[in-house]
Amino acid sequence: MFLGKVVGTVVASQKEASLDGLKFLVVRRLTVAGDETAGYAVAADAVGAGLGEVVMVASGSSARQTVFTDKRPCDAVIMAIVDTWEVGGQEIYRKDEGVIPDA
Amino acid sequence: MFLGKVVGTVVASQKEASLDGLKFLVVRRLTVAGDETAGYAVAADAVGAGLGEVVMVASGSSARQTVFTDKRPCDAVIMAIVDTWEVGGQEIYRKDEGVIPDA
Amino acid sequence: MFLGKVVGTVVASQKEASLDGLKFLVVRRLTVAGDETAGYAVAADAVGAGLGEVVMVASGSSARQTVFTDKRPCDAVIMAIVDTWEVGGQEIYRKDEGVIPDA
Amino acid sequence: MFLGKVVGTVVASQKEASLDGLKFLVVRRLTVAGDETAGYAVAADAVGAGLGEVVMVASGSSARQTVFTDKRPCDAVIMAIVDTWEVGGQEIYRKDEGVIPDA
Amino acid sequence: MFLGKVVGTVVASQKEASLDGLKFLVVRRLTVAGDETAGYAVAADAVGAGLGEVVMVASGSSARQTVFTDKRPCDAVIMAIVDTWEVGGQEIYRKDEGVIPDA
Repeated sequence: MFLGKVVGTVVASQKEASLDGLKFLVVRRLTVAGDETAGYAVAADAVGAGLGEVVMVASGSSARQTVFTDKRPCDAVIMAIVDTWEVGGQEIYRKDEGVIPDA
Repeated sequence: MFLGKVVGTVVASQKEASLDGLKFLVVRRLTVAGDETAGYAVAADAVGAGLGEVVMVASGSSARQTVFTDKRPCDAVIMAIVDTWEVGGQEIYRKDEGVIPDA
Repeated sequence: MFLGKVVGTVVASQKEASLDGLKFLVVRRLTVAGDETAGYAVAADAVGAGLGEVVMVASGSSARQTVFTDKRPCDAVIMAIVDTWEVGGQEIYRKDEGVIPDA
Repeated sequence: MFLGKVVGTVVASQKEASLDGLKFLVVRRLTVAGDETAGYAVAADAVGAGLGEVVMVASGSSARQTVFTDKRPCDAVIMAIVDTWEVGGQEIYRKDEGVIPDA
Repeated sequence: MFLGKVVGTVVASQKEASLDGLKFLVVRRLTVAGDETAGYAVAADAVGAGLGEVVMVASGSSARQTVFTDKRPCDAVIMAIVDTWEVGGQEIYRKDEGVIPDA
């Protein structure tokens, strides 16, 4: 999985029929230190993630292992909303504070 | 999924038999800001996408989860045509206007 | 899929038993404009491709969706020989002419 | 698989139900020479790995081939803790010593 | 598949139970011209490859299509030992000679 930040939404009315009802979010990849990168994925949302939240995204066939995405042409899914993550004993991110500046 | 722009077509008469009838389109990858990159995929079209349209492409085994691509040697499929996408509260693209210049 | 040019062959007598009879070709990745890149894959040939031809390669589990590669440890397959491809309304490649210089 | 060093943890209370009980670790990718890179994955832990340990991570559908991750939306799993690894006849890493400086 | 050179070994006693008996080798990726790159994979050995040999590695779910790796959390397998490979009509590598200098 990669750590990402939900930065946007995609609306598509003309799509493969099985995708009806899925919500597609634009998720920017974060570095281990919490910095945004140019990388991103458009991921289906399986957990009710909101704009600005940090999430975990699973890719490939693993993205289809939820009730929302099962047997659908979908290769990325938000499967968790991150509360905190820490690296090297330092907290990098806390959900109520965002990325911690002096981490 | 990645966001891409349909920029071309590929014609191949000599191919694996199960691929007959599939339409293959050249899709350039877009950045989150709507800029074209050097990256691309040749994707099967499952939604009737046209040249110049912005689409979503699913890759890997997920590309086989449509009636058109099921059990076929195809690793990328256009599974949606994008109406609008927005990032950071700003509309980046609208189908009838294209990428919005001052986004 | 990616567009590639068949540039070479690999011979391997000592291999997983199920691979007997498969032909392995070296395929260089091409850009959308038809230029060769440093990227490549060794792909099984499912369509009788020849040296110098431009082909489409499917990767991952999709590479096993042919009679030649089914249930084999093979992650890339040539599943089509390209006749022509065009980008932005311009023909980039035609099988009988190669990459078109002023495209 | 890639060789990685466990550098952190991710806590996520709001997640796909099937993921309950899984422990998610931040694993930095290592070069063949044992140097840390910017690359990383968040991986489920199937072997009780600890902070600072060098591990092997399997990705994609292979990440679901453990009792912990079977049928779950998880695309990376720590499936082994490395004791030693050597390259070119030189030991690069030994579990009780870490990366060996003059390797 | 990619062409790689077996440069090392990984020993891991604490691992997912199904992996017992598998041998893990460090394989450096080679360019089409036979040069070593920084890229590598740790791959399970399905063909009895030795240090210094040039091999083909299959990745992803295809890496599980051998008796050694079936249903195991393993995403890369050595499925062939290369005898020769040639590019553009020139022999790049021959097993008994190694990479051919003036290729």
